[in-house]
Parts: sequence; C-alpha cells; structure tokens
Amino acid sequence: MIQAKAYAALSPDTNLEPWNFERREIGPHDVQIQILYCGVCHTDIHFTRNEWFPGVFPMVPGHEIVGRIIATGNHVRKFKIGDAAGVGTMVDSCRHCGDCTTGHENFCQEQTVYTYGGTGKDGQPTYGGFSDTIIVHEDFTFHISEKLNLAATAPLLCAGITMYSPLRKWKVGAGHKLGIVGLGGLGHMGVKFGLAFGADVTVISTSAGKEAAARKLGAHHFVVSKDEEQMKSVFHSFDFIIDTVSADHDINPYIGLLKTNGAYINVGLAAKPWEISSFSLAIGNKTVTGSGSGGLKETQEMLDFCADQNIVSDIEMIDMKDINNAFDRMEKGDVRYRFVIDMATL
Amino acid sequence: MIQAKAYAALSPDTNLEPWNFERREIGPHDVQIQILYCGVCHTDIHFTRNEWFPGVFPMVPGHEIVGRIIATGNHVRKFKIGDAAGVGTMVDSCRHCGDCTTGHENFCQEQTVYTYGGTGKDGQPTYGGFSDTIIVHEDFTFHISEKLNLAATAPLLCAGITMYSPLRKWKVGAGHKLGIVGLGGLGHMGVKFGLAFGADVTVISTSAGKEAAARKLGAHHFVVSKDEEQMKSVFHSFDFIIDTVSADHDINPYIGLLKTNGAYINVGLAAKPWEISSFSLAIGNKTVTGSGSGGLKETQEMLDFCADQNIVSDIEMIDMKDINNAFDRMEKGDVRYRFVIDMATL
Repeated sequence: MIQAKAYAALSPDTNLEPWNFERREIGPHDVQIQILYCGVCHTDIHFTRNEWFPGVFPMVPGHEIVGRIIATGNHVRKFKIGDAAGVGTMVDSCRHCGDCTTGHENFCQEQTVYTYGGTGKDGQPTYGGFSDTIIVHEDFTFHISEKLNLAATAPLLCAGITMYSPLRKWKVGAGHKLGIVGLGGLGHMGVKFGLAFGADVTVISTSAGKEAAARKLGAHHFVVSKDEEQMKSVFHSFDFIIDTVSADHDINPYIGLLKTNGAYINVGLAAKPWEISSFSLAIGNKTVTGSGSGGLKETQEMLDFCADQNIVSDIEMIDMKDINNAFDRMEKGDVRYRFVIDMATL
Repeated sequence: MIQAKAYAALSPDTNLEPWNFERREIGPHDVQIQILYCGVCHTDIHFTRNEWFPGVFPMVPGHEIVGRIIATGNHVRKFKIGDAAGVGTMVDSCRHCGDCTTGHENFCQEQTVYTYGGTGKDGQPTYGGFSDTIIVHEDFTFHISEKLNLAATAPLLCAGITMYSPLRKWKVGAGHKLGIVGLGGLGHMGVKFGLAFGADVTVISTSAGKEAAARKLGAHHFVVSKDEEQMKSVFHSFDFIIDTVSADHDINPYIGLLKTNGAYINVGLAAKPWEISSFSLAIGNKTVTGSGSGGLKETQEMLDFCADQNIVSDIEMIDMKDINNAFDRMEKGDVRYRFVIDMATL
C-alpha cells in the first residue's frame, strides 16, 4: 500500500483536519500522481457536510486535481513519469454500458466511481485530491498542457467541463444571446467559454456589485435579477440561459427571458424541486434542461481547447490549512472565482 | 355583413346550442370558406367552459376547419373559388415581430388572434368553425389536397400540427425510440407521424385495453404506465417521449424512461404545474420541453407531407346536434380518435 496524507472530514459535523491513510498499490493500468494543485468545488462542501446524501467518513474531498505522474503501472501507454496530468470528478465506471461506450462515463448505468465519497471496484472507499498523491487508472487521467498555468488549470476538471459540455451540446455560438446566471466558479468559466464560442454574453446576478467583475471578464451585458425593470428589458431575448446558482430559487423568471425555441440549462443543482407550468414551455416551444459534468473524451477535448485558446480559471491560491476558512468564504460567495489549494503546503 | 349560423356556448355554464350571428365583410385579402367539416379538439371544451381563462360569450368553438372557397377579395392571389381550404388555430397576428417573421405566428409577441375566443384587429370577437362559413385572411388559410378525405383532414389543422411540429423540431426519425403517452386525438397522430419519420414507436397508456388499437395503428410496442414491471422494462430507453395527456399527472416517471440526452416533450397542457428536481435532469443531460401548435409555413408543410404520405386522422363523424354528447364522450376518452362534425347537418 502507498502512504498518503490529506485533509479529511472525519465526520459530517467537523471541520477538515490532517489525516493519514493508505492508497492502493499501482495496478498495471494505473498511474500515480503527485498532486500539485486541487481546486475547491461547492460539491466538496455539500459532500463533506452530508447536504445531498449520507457519505462515508473520513472523507477526503477534491475533484479538480492537477499534478505530475511519478509512477506508472506496467501496461500504461498514455503517460510517462514527469507528465502533467489531471483527474476530475470520476475515477472509474463499468466501461461497457450504453453510456460508457458513448462517452458518457459520468452517467454509467452500473456505477460511476466518484473521485471521492465513492466506492471503487475493489470495494474500498475513494479519497479525493486534498491529498499529496492519488492512484488512478490511466483511462480516467487526463493530459494537461504545460502551456497553461497548472494551478489555474485545476478548476477546469469540474467547473470547466460542467460549463463546456452543455454549451457544446446545445451548439452555443456566434449569433446567440447567452445569459449566465450567477458569477462564481461555474459562471465565470461560462463567460470565458461563451466568449470563446462567439456568443453575445450577459451575466445575470442578484448582486449589482458584480457588474465591474463581469465586464472585466469580457461579458457584453449585465442584468441585476432583482431589478424588475432590468429583467423586463431582456424579456424574450435569450437563445440560451445557463443557471449556475446552487441556492434554491424560482427558475420561472429565467424561462420568461427566453426567446421562442430558447433553452434554460441548469447546472447549479439547487436542492428544492422547481414548479414549472406546462404552458410556460408550450408557449414559445421552450426547453428546460440539465447537464451534469462531462465524459472522458469531452473532458480531454475541453482541456485541449483551453490550452489552444489560453483559457484557465481565475483563482485564489490558498494553503491547505486554510481550507475551512475557504469553505466559509465560499458559502458567502466571497471568492473570485475559485480557490485552489497549493498542495506543497500540505 | 355576412349572415352566419353556428352552434355556440352562450355562457360557460350552458351546453352548445344553435346561434345566428354576422361575420365581417370580405376584405381585399380575405377568402370566404363554406365550412364542410370541423374537428372537435379538447381545447374546445376547455375554452367553452372557461377551464383555462375567462372567455368572451357567446363563443363558437372549432379550429380544425376544412371547406371550400366560395368568395375571394379583390387582391387574393393564393386561392380561387372552388379550392379546398383549411383554417387552424389562428386567423391573424402582427406579422412583423421576431416570431411572426420567423414562422412562429402562433407565438406572436403582439397578439396571435385565435380562430375563436380571440379579438380580431377590428376589435370584434372571433368565432370558430362550428359554423356554416368563415371569413379569413388568405395568409392564414391553407391549401388542402383533394387527394385526401376532406373530413379526415380537418383534425390535421390542430392535432396534426401539434404533433408534427415538435417531432420535426427535435428531428425524430430513424434510429430513435419514441414514446407516445396517451392514445387520443393527439397521440394517434403522433403514432402516424412517428412511423412516417422512421422512429421505433411505443404507445404508453394507463389503459391496457388500448394495446390492440395501438398495434392496429402500427405502434411497435405498448407499455401500460400503471404497471411498474412494464415501466421498469423500458427505463432509460427512450430518445424522445411526447406526452399528450391533458389530465394532471406526474411527469417524473417519464423523465426516468429517457436515455441520456433524451427529451420529454409536453403537448398535453395539463393545468397543474409540475415538480421537477434539478438532479433528475442533470443526471443524463435530460430535457423537458413544451410545444404549442405550429406556424403558418410549417402547417402548410405538414398538410403537404400528409397529402404525400396519405396521412389523415382516424375520425368519427357526428351531426352538429350531437356536439354536447361528443364533449361528454371526449371527457371519458371515448372517441377513436377525433370527432369531426359534418357541417351539412347544421
């Protein structure tokens, strides 16, 4: 077994704290990564606090992992020692169901093994990236370009693919008006991808104070969602709205902002179910859709696109010991736009 | 003014009864149609009973109109006297908004003038097809092929386009598994179009007794939605499900039947809002969408497609005097699959 150290939640009611544990031996198709950076996703808070469902503790969160290959199994062909490598939200799947064979391993019909809080095929719990090292099958490990700042690349592994995948699926691009609800870790990546794809980008936020930041990112327009007049002025005007807000809220005002044939895309995963009237969709042939992360092939495609277009996340680097404070700040929306842990501080 | 006779609801609480009224004079771009047949749509019940919103009474329902041109305005170019012609759910719109200019007059941003229960640009109420004649602008009048049975063509003007439009928008065809929930006026047209487009068609019904009828229409499969085992057997298997049921019901079981990237399309317009969880759409990138009738260009395209493919509605012809009984039977789902009034009996 391989000794590893980490920050873990020992229970859903406690702060994260230092914890030592063992990783599995390196199998023939595994790589061992020295973790250099790990992004901090809102899911890390949901999972370590049992906000969505009961987890297995101790829990080591973190699924926006970037590092370097430090060992490879005998059969590994994709990586060599020294390569920059990344791991996202999953580390395994059945690989033979209809979803796995069509690039949707994230929706595996048997079991997507999540990077942490899941159970591997060996029956052991998985532990995430708030750690010094991780062992992952090469198929679930991504190539990371050396052209990009490695720390700022880490959030692409979850926030990046979560925004990239639906924008690609719905072919958002030139000639489209795209609204992005919420300007956080997801939202700011949405602005970057929306601009890269050629869309006319509007940031929609409850907070008027975010306008300058939105403009600085390149957003063409800014709308305060609490301002009725501003909302009226963009009624029936968007081809697509992508909603990144994880707090419970009514989505019907956003459906009203869609043009005929427009689509509202949810990636925020608020817990409370929505109430939607059939008429609000029938009048204008409107669509409400969701999107959950992305598959292996599309994640690598996104990473390559980002390397090509020089797209990374805007980050605030933190020391490992400051993670609990970072969680608290994220709960208040006080981060521009993603915390990334410098794992050298572990 | 032009004298007309009809069956009307004099109030939302009374049965339909004979009623005489005046239609407008024929304007330069108007045609006068002698109505031969009018289909009976569930909307006729909703409207004449104020089930959706308060209407203007007396109300003459009927928006599945087929007849012959008996007079034309001076500037009419599209029709000549003697032509077969049809009128659907609308008789006017602003004609210059973004929706009107892109073939979505049914979603006009100023005002779609409904065939009945609406208000024309002259400020007068509109009266529908349960009548001997109607005056309509030629742009809102469709060519009807003489190749088809005229009576059985009438339901295409609402039920037909309501099913055709979303199936075309979502490019449903060969290689797709299509579920159709409900086998009534809409559902049976969905089976016909689904088959014509090359899809693998499953009828999903609460009633096991409808299997023989579904198979007779050509459906490949039949599922009883109240049978848990049958529903389980088609879990995660449909590319598209089109739900035609107008009674309130939970749509979440149908979302569960969708494959990854599948779409649930609602045309049934049940009154009670749905409760939908963001997770149920995110896991599998699933879509919930609505569709409301169709525009002028697409309606003519649908009529031409039907003439080419020999597609009409399965109908039960009734006399005008039997309309109230027909409404009662429709409420019980006791019609295969559309009542059409023989207007010679008025």
